Amino acid sequence: MANNGKMFLEELEKKLDINIQDKDLLREAVTHSSYANGKKNVKFNERLEFLGDSVLQLCISEFLFTNYSNKSEGELTKRRALIVCENSLYEIAKKWGVGKYIRMSKGEELTGGRERISILADCVEAIIAAVYVDNGFEKAKKFIIDNFKDIIEKAIKNKIILDYKTKLQEVMQQNGDVCIEYSLIKHEGPPHRRKFYTEVSVDGSILGSGVGYSKKESEQNAAQEALKTLEEENE
Amino acid sequence: MANNGKMFLEELEKKLDINIQDKDLLREAVTHSSYANGKKNVKFNERLEFLGDSVLQLCISEFLFTNYSNKSEGELTKRRALIVCENSLYEIAKKWGVGKYIRMSKGEELTGGRERISILADCVEAIIAAVYVDNGFEKAKKFIIDNFKDIIEKAIKNKIILDYKTKLQEVMQQNGDVCIEYSLIKHEGPPHRRKFYTEVSVDGSILGSGVGYSKKESEQNAAQEALKTLEEENE
Repeated sequence: MANNGKMFLEELEKKLDINIQDKDLLREAVTHSSYANGKKNVKFNERLEFLGDSVLQLCISEFLFTNYSNKSEGELTKRRALIVCENSLYEIAKKWGVGKYIRMSKGEELTGGRERISILADCVEAIIAAVYVDNGFEKAKKFIIDNFKDIIEKAIKNKIILDYKTKLQEVMQQNGDVCIEYSLIKHEGPPHRRKFYTEVSVDGSILGSGVGYSKKESEQNAAQEALKTLEEENE
Repeated sequence: MANNGKMFLEELEKKLDINIQDKDLLREAVTHSSYANGKKNVKFNERLEFLGDSVLQLCISEFLFTNYSNKSEGELTKRRALIVCENSLYEIAKKWGVGKYIRMSKGEELTGGRERISILADCVEAIIAAVYVDNGFEKAKKFIIDNFKDIIEKAIKNKIILDYKTKLQEVMQQNGDVCIEYSLIKHEGPPHRRKFYTEVSVDGSILGSGVGYSKKESEQNAAQEALKTLEEENE
């Protein structure tokens, strides 16, 4: 279970590259509801997540509004949806290595909570709120833009892909009909924390493999790897 | 057609009770897309509306987050949805009398554009963005909270009703089955700007009447009046 001492939080702040004076606030931001269950006076991060979502939304909206004055409202909305979404937040969570710092119940942890996309994404929003409450709007804006700049750039260039399986199909079928198959190679671990290994083949040739805590996740990861392979081949 | 001279915009600023230095920005905020159609270099308010929606969302989120520390994320989300919605924005638009100041095409105006809920609501969001861009976040926040305080209060007390017809049915049927009927009394005006007059009766007694630019709108307004009548009777 994650420690919540001052040193531990300071280590997280270093990774975030920001100072949050109010350590209780940061602690709240990295506390999952499962940890607070049955405990008195333990605040968890859902309220901060509610606030953080709006802070993120405004900062990204303003960035797009200011920097892409030639784009219509429809275009801006589409790009924002690519940036402010669970997948992007998950990317940020991985960059920060935030999973290690989340306080959660033993049960949640044993079933893969530290790698769960929704838990990690929510925690990123809560941390954004903590930065906002502690440092004010302008600093939060800078913090967000600094951290999201790669994601923003990809969204502008239309390089964010939300569904890798669909994308792989689109790419492969440009040259006529092909047969894409996903094969579950193996699974391992206890039922509550089972890992699935999938390979994807196109017309019989294996193009990628992926691991995940559900079949679906492992297939998406396999498709993502296949797309990367294809991209590298074309470079 | 609305004038867009400096005097006219200053009159609007007085009603908004805020100063916007950049008159071009305010002019953009009150320009409907129909006005810009076929004209070169005329900016309309859709991009500002995109930004204003996020400014409003954050300011209301923060207000709820700060002032209702006992409420869960779910409760806060529900209240915010009641506050940040087309109906609330329409209330604000009516309070400001903003319809008069919107630049729109003759066609839009002739078909009731100045009273159209969506046009008025969008314009309020665009004005909020203009205040934000021109005055900064803190002033925009104060502007929003000052203007939305009645709506926030109602939302907290659960007094905002989104669908008056459903609400009337719920209220009336607490005492068993009743027969609620909506009768179209008359309509007037040319087809592109027709006004509908509806009366609502409960078990044969007329409880309210309403006017609107569609049957549906006139029925909602009749139901709203009926609810008001019932409320006054119970006081």
